[in-house]
Amino acid sequence: MEKKLLMIPGPIEIAPDVLNEMNVPMEPHYGVKWTNFYYDTIERVKKIIGTESDTFLHVGSGHAAIDAVIGSIVEEGEKVLVLSNGFFGERIAEIVESFRGTAVQFKTDWGKALSPSDIDDYLNDNHEKFSKVMVVHHDTSTGVRNPVKEIARVVKKYGLLLFVDAVCSIGVTEFKMDEWGIDACITASQKGLGAPPGLAIISVNDKAWEVIENRKQKPTGWYLNLATMREFAEKQKEWQPYGITMAVNNVKALNKALRNIEEEGLESRIERHDNIGRYFRNGIRALGLETGASEEDAANNVTVIFNPEGMGSQELIDILEQEYQIMIANGLGVYAGKAFRVGHMNLGASKNSVVPVINALDEIIDKKL
Amino acid sequence: MEKKLLMIPGPIEIAPDVLNEMNVPMEPHYGVKWTNFYYDTIERVKKIIGTESDTFLHVGSGHAAIDAVIGSIVEEGEKVLVLSNGFFGERIAEIVESFRGTAVQFKTDWGKALSPSDIDDYLNDNHEKFSKVMVVHHDTSTGVRNPVKEIARVVKKYGLLLFVDAVCSIGVTEFKMDEWGIDACITASQKGLGAPPGLAIISVNDKAWEVIENRKQKPTGWYLNLATMREFAEKQKEWQPYGITMAVNNVKALNKALRNIEEEGLESRIERHDNIGRYFRNGIRALGLETGASEEDAANNVTVIFNPEGMGSQELIDILEQEYQIMIANGLGVYAGKAFRVGHMNLGASKNSVVPVINALDEIIDKKL
Repeated sequence: MEKKLLMIPGPIEIAPDVLNEMNVPMEPHYGVKWTNFYYDTIERVKKIIGTESDTFLHVGSGHAAIDAVIGSIVEEGEKVLVLSNGFFGERIAEIVESFRGTAVQFKTDWGKALSPSDIDDYLNDNHEKFSKVMVVHHDTSTGVRNPVKEIARVVKKYGLLLFVDAVCSIGVTEFKMDEWGIDACITASQKGLGAPPGLAIISVNDKAWEVIENRKQKPTGWYLNLATMREFAEKQKEWQPYGITMAVNNVKALNKALRNIEEEGLESRIERHDNIGRYFRNGIRALGLETGASEEDAANNVTVIFNPEGMGSQELIDILEQEYQIMIANGLGVYAGKAFRVGHMNLGASKNSVVPVINALDEIIDKKL
Repeated sequence: MEKKLLMIPGPIEIAPDVLNEMNVPMEPHYGVKWTNFYYDTIERVKKIIGTESDTFLHVGSGHAAIDAVIGSIVEEGEKVLVLSNGFFGERIAEIVESFRGTAVQFKTDWGKALSPSDIDDYLNDNHEKFSKVMVVHHDTSTGVRNPVKEIARVVKKYGLLLFVDAVCSIGVTEFKMDEWGIDACITASQKGLGAPPGLAIISVNDKAWEVIENRKQKPTGWYLNLATMREFAEKQKEWQPYGITMAVNNVKALNKALRNIEEEGLESRIERHDNIGRYFRNGIRALGLETGASEEDAANNVTVIFNPEGMGSQELIDILEQEYQIMIANGLGVYAGKAFRVGHMNLGASKNSVVPVINALDEIIDKKL
């Protein structure tokens, strides 16, 4: 059997030594030894998030983490400003509404990064309507990186709380929660951090806790309730700092993935992703294909590409898998069927991974002409 | 290093061929091939649950599944009858309240099974106050098995909806969702099914869907919302029947664990657990120790044991781990510090696993005397 290249935006191809950790003999999700290992993992991930704030691992996908934050901080009927320029920005709005908040979307066209100065202008007139702003860092539906650092500066100017969905960015691009003034952020194990899927990661600062403590009405639910998570983290600190059965194998693998990042060096890892991202986009454009994001707005680990003329996304996905053993993903939302998505992160952020994709596309286009 | 015996009520010691599946090369959580594998897993688990009803895997612990069901079916301010005789019965009540329902607890003493005829008497006078009844099958805090089959018969007599938390029972004891008339039930990967932790499993019948469809107010949240899960299962049926990143490795392992159960035969597996459970409890009582449940009420895969005189649970846990390489768990709730818990399921349901525990306790008691 030929080796397949897994080039979707996650789950991604991960290092064998990380995957091996999934296979260690089962151990309890409590006890001093385990708890120390858990905290070791938390401390390592906090460094990558750039925070000293409370950080939790939870069993779930990235969406679980988004639900946990939004459900914990948004009050019923509250107007929340959602900065939105892709499928996952819209998803945030949907989740706000599912908790009976009102999501006011400040929209920018798909494929364009949100403009901090436009947001500033908008907030200048409207900041009194809101107390919370939410944004996606790398929206994998467009391949756009939003300038979260600059957005945070604007949001802070108006004293609003900022929540960032950083599922696809943390671990491969600069992210400094505390320094930038982000109040809550989430990520997941299976993208920039280079581990298997299964774990959600949530960081919450004091300002966010204050919001949670001063809610008019308690949030709904138990599993994704940040106050509940904190309660267990405090009262069972030394034995089992959560109230659920932790996915121990997945934590083992995440810990190893984090140690791998440290070994490479976060700076070098970011640079590698920047370089490969640029190399890949240049290759794609040289084929005459159009990327979802302009060069200056592009995320460094996922590229959205509009289909070659006369081809559908599914046709392309099938040819790439069957004839080239390369797995890519369909477009999302309004891009479904019109574009495809290539993830190039972790092991995939290498020429050995992206060159075959460029070559395969080249051959496919040639044959079509 | 000596081999440790993992004898906690979960995660449990699992078969090497199941663990190996955690370590397979990463693959996408979508596509025809994966989706077929996912459905294969669903069909296998449905057989063990004894249902033809809609069944979902979700990334989460058992608690996630409980939240999903309760949050989806309970209306704000609604009175729900929670049959409760242990820590996890109380937890269900807590989760009902977290969704702003009112949990009315019909309580039986910890250590005693709920009595169907007492429930019948109670419902005879009170059934008009409720439309939903909830109960835990094996409450691991007491080691009691509640007679869910007979309880279901009573609850059906009054036309009420029955939700069963079967986290610790499905896969090791008789459970027939459809035949018994259970409307919704949940379990998790890491107990009776013999897989690593990380997956929640939820089954919902038409009566439960009807309740969800006819709610006065939509449920809160996105991640643990059954209506959302069904929406994705329908609209993305052939490609990705959920809206989240599935924990692919964990599904691989669960599938293998289910195939192992089929190979052993569910009947034989249940019998093995019955036999080992009885053997273990007899051994424990022969040491002069008292179990949390009487023989007729005992769950076959977890035993709660009150501490030998003059010893605390933590002391016992530490001695067993350090001197005997055996891992057991502390009591829960009112039993914390007063009792300890031993899980004997899956690989642990064997004389080679329970004999060392009995012998170790024998030696410890001897030394103390």
